[in-house]
Amino acid sequence: MNGQPTTKATLESVAKLAGVAPSTVSRVLNTPDKVPQKTLDRVNQAISQTGYVPNLIAGSLASNRSRLIAAITPSMANLVYAETMQSFSRVLKDNGYEVLLGESGYDLKAEEKIVTTVLSRRPDAIFLTGIHHTLECRRRLHSAGIPIVESWDITPTPLDLVVGFSHAEVGKSVATYFCDKGYTSFSLASAGDQRAHVRAEAYLKELSARGQTDITPVIREPSPSVALGRSIMSDLLDQKKTPFAVFCSSDVVALGALFEVLARGLSIPDDVAIMGFGNQNFAMYTHPALSTVRVDCINMGEKSAQMLLARLQNEQTEGHSFDVGFEILARETS
Amino acid sequence: MNGQPTTKATLESVAKLAGVAPSTVSRVLNTPDKVPQKTLDRVNQAISQTGYVPNLIAGSLASNRSRLIAAITPSMANLVYAETMQSFSRVLKDNGYEVLLGESGYDLKAEEKIVTTVLSRRPDAIFLTGIHHTLECRRRLHSAGIPIVESWDITPTPLDLVVGFSHAEVGKSVATYFCDKGYTSFSLASAGDQRAHVRAEAYLKELSARGQTDITPVIREPSPSVALGRSIMSDLLDQKKTPFAVFCSSDVVALGALFEVLARGLSIPDDVAIMGFGNQNFAMYTHPALSTVRVDCINMGEKSAQMLLARLQNEQTEGHSFDVGFEILARETS
Repeated sequence: MNGQPTTKATLESVAKLAGVAPSTVSRVLNTPDKVPQKTLDRVNQAISQTGYVPNLIAGSLASNRSRLIAAITPSMANLVYAETMQSFSRVLKDNGYEVLLGESGYDLKAEEKIVTTVLSRRPDAIFLTGIHHTLECRRRLHSAGIPIVESWDITPTPLDLVVGFSHAEVGKSVATYFCDKGYTSFSLASAGDQRAHVRAEAYLKELSARGQTDITPVIREPSPSVALGRSIMSDLLDQKKTPFAVFCSSDVVALGALFEVLARGLSIPDDVAIMGFGNQNFAMYTHPALSTVRVDCINMGEKSAQMLLARLQNEQTEGHSFDVGFEILARETS
Repeated sequence: MNGQPTTKATLESVAKLAGVAPSTVSRVLNTPDKVPQKTLDRVNQAISQTGYVPNLIAGSLASNRSRLIAAITPSMANLVYAETMQSFSRVLKDNGYEVLLGESGYDLKAEEKIVTTVLSRRPDAIFLTGIHHTLECRRRLHSAGIPIVESWDITPTPLDLVVGFSHAEVGKSVATYFCDKGYTSFSLASAGDQRAHVRAEAYLKELSARGQTDITPVIREPSPSVALGRSIMSDLLDQKKTPFAVFCSSDVVALGALFEVLARGLSIPDDVAIMGFGNQNFAMYTHPALSTVRVDCINMGEKSAQMLLARLQNEQTEGHSFDVGFEILARETS
């Protein structure tokens, strides 16, 4: 049992094993069609035997192409982003790119730091979550001269490309939906990230615009979690008369709210109506099934990948901006 | 509205703006303590104005250090891995490394491909999930000559370092727990990944060893999901007499099973006892609260990071292997 790594295979060790000059190994790697088949076979066998990994970075410095795309997500622990990343990654893998993911933790300063590190590895393109970045981060991204796609939001002034939807429209639509359903008492259970704030504000504004006054918003700072949903709903039920309708900042928060209502022996939606956000893959399988706002995460990832690929292939792109929209799914909790 | 990236800033453009020679900019980047303060300020201001990103790759080719650690996870959509990655990443960031994550999709061939791509970028170290890899992947990893940590499993013969726990022991312990509780009818609701299979086999073997015969295992291929849990539990309740106890391959599968039992108006744990796996952050907030097997994901990530850091700093490490263990948390569903 010896776990120490063995000596690193080099181009020279491959050449030695194959009985050729190092320059021949380079030619096999860079212009294999110009190398006789017999030599090709011999060198490839030696590469396989030694486990040599060609150093593509050196190549990418020369050609400025590294077949690597970097993506920044706010949280690895939030599944709505994971679904977008998976579809984004799938399209790019099919086109010969690998995607590597970094996490910013909903912190613009941390995003700036990871963007700086990532750019120093010269990725072919970069995927960002959100449209808010530090000034320094924007400047570095602009100077990098690579295609950039921002996602999960929409703006008339993207850094380069943007694929997302309007969070203000989401908030407004949920308020309209609740009012149309006849609810007259409302709440909001929200985590504190920037996009959730925009949805929350638009929701509250629309309720006010419609003359509603019985509104209890609860916005807390931590990331969305089932624990947060239970805790907010517990506080709400201690202070607010049922029935009421609550808009949660994510399906995970809604799941916590749902369990708290059930744990108190109250009824959904008669005592408390619940609307989530995101339509995560569990939402239709809860009991009762969760009403939520569907965002087409898969389309968002695919479209982002396709727009970047078009840029990378120097195709004329139709526009800088693509709105994937959203849809209210009225299931059993509202 | 013009989203086109601007021209890429170069070392030369920084030098020009600062009114110094390019070699002076290099000295500011590489040996700032040997540059007069006035020059330092002027060059740093120019770097900031142009948004120039020093090309650390060129430096890393020379020094063989790139301050980048690559991690491979089976799925971005499985939160047990996300928690490990977050704690792993936190420790390494605190020590000046950035972590970038690639996804293998529970597919050893895909893992081999992404490992090959990642190694060509010469990371300082690599984190792998699981101890099973293709032969070609093992060979490439060995030849890379960098510290490697395998996780989420344990083996006497790691590639280099390993931090995890025994899945066979988990399966055996859950069987023992159910038997000690007096259950005499059992089931298994499992997704089909390799580690889940090991837990399942050990669970079934221990039940048999204890003379139990009323056992209905259901193992399906897709990734764990709430939908999978509901579907398996629905089939089980159609064919198997209650009461019985079921061991689920993950908390997400257990959550689906829980909702299916509730949707049928049956009682937990009187009709169906449920045990999850992973102790995801929602497990203690379900209603009834989910019994599960706690794995210390955070410790696993931190310990992996610390062992890699010790290797990177050429410290003598105490051992190649660290077992984080596990613990059965008996809550309300069993």
